[in-house]
Amino acid sequence: MSAIAVKEVKERVIADNDAVAEEVKAGLKEKKVFFVNLMASPGAGKTTTLVRTIEALKDRYKVGVMEADVDSVVDAETVAKTGAKVIQLHTGGSCHMDADMTKRGLEALDCDGLDIVFLENVGNLVCPAEFDVGASKRVMILSVPEGDDKPLKYPLMFTVSDCLLINKTDTAEIFDFDMDRLQKNVKALNPDMPVIPVSSLKGDGFDAWIAWLEKEVCAWQK
Amino acid sequence: MSAIAVKEVKERVIADNDAVAEEVKAGLKEKKVFFVNLMASPGAGKTTTLVRTIEALKDRYKVGVMEADVDSVVDAETVAKTGAKVIQLHTGGSCHMDADMTKRGLEALDCDGLDIVFLENVGNLVCPAEFDVGASKRVMILSVPEGDDKPLKYPLMFTVSDCLLINKTDTAEIFDFDMDRLQKNVKALNPDMPVIPVSSLKGDGFDAWIAWLEKEVCAWQK
Repeated sequence: MSAIAVKEVKERVIADNDAVAEEVKAGLKEKKVFFVNLMASPGAGKTTTLVRTIEALKDRYKVGVMEADVDSVVDAETVAKTGAKVIQLHTGGSCHMDADMTKRGLEALDCDGLDIVFLENVGNLVCPAEFDVGASKRVMILSVPEGDDKPLKYPLMFTVSDCLLINKTDTAEIFDFDMDRLQKNVKALNPDMPVIPVSSLKGDGFDAWIAWLEKEVCAWQK
Repeated sequence: MSAIAVKEVKERVIADNDAVAEEVKAGLKEKKVFFVNLMASPGAGKTTTLVRTIEALKDRYKVGVMEADVDSVVDAETVAKTGAKVIQLHTGGSCHMDADMTKRGLEALDCDGLDIVFLENVGNLVCPAEFDVGASKRVMILSVPEGDDKPLKYPLMFTVSDCLLINKTDTAEIFDFDMDRLQKNVKALNPDMPVIPVSSLKGDGFDAWIAWLEKEVCAWQK
């Protein structure tokens, strides 16, 4: 029996996703809650990245997490061990979160008193990119084993994101992943996006990632 | 300038996907074309698996390939080097192929005289599982770096597939991937599905995979 709170947020037909996203954003701005939409393929390391990120932040910020999945509570159980406030969202089969689902998730999480909320979106490089969920910033993770050609095949995700983490750099030696080629492919789509190599398992690169995040949180809260 | 044929197959609203899928299946049965719907996450190794599979089959079978992607022709260019008949399908942003898109793709490919056609579906573990595209068999690839917990989070894909390849086994030593746990998670959803560990890069396990495939092709053509 799991102690994780689960909220069903099955997709509804909402005429104007962007209007709901703006509403979400305004509500969080008023509460000074910085909201990160974290997106990646299945298995890119979203949960491991979140756990290490929360460990790095938790002495200075109150952190909340919404874990979105089609099914299961495995990620929420993992994240709950950090002490962060966690809720599991089930999307009812949907391959992405939209603004309305996010709004209901945030209400169920209850953001009062939180400084930062992370949404771990459904593992998918296509549809999550199409939906503004009202996040302060969109962060994408690409993992080394997935390959450096992914910007060519999933261009929208790389275009709409505000920061790109390249995860599992500790495995770079055994995969044919060319960081220069990746950077070139990314720059063609999103020239100003920071690209930060990390190993969420080992902690490499986390100083740069946490520095970027804190700078953005600080700018948001002003 | 690429020599790859590209077909736009943007999704249309079709009332009954399954009826179109049956139509596709009947048409291919008449032509004795065995049709594989290959599904996986981005970067799981679909294209590398296809290339090695075609190399193993091409002396005995005429092979055609439909590469489905949101954008780019990189996979079709790679596969074309094998000598297989290849077409690139662009899904117009859609995160999956449905039966109608597949039907139009097969018409553009022209299956006359082919023995086996592979569809490399869009890299995604959610929506492709929901759409019967008229395939003779559905084959899923899960790669070791993605983790052994994926059946818990993307149950439908593991439930509807007829064969599961576990790819990148050559990297098993550096990832925390428990094959027994994976098998247990898979068996709970799809007890009779064969699970075949392979390394598409090195060729390990391909004897078992090709044997399964040829047995199914033989049964289909009878």
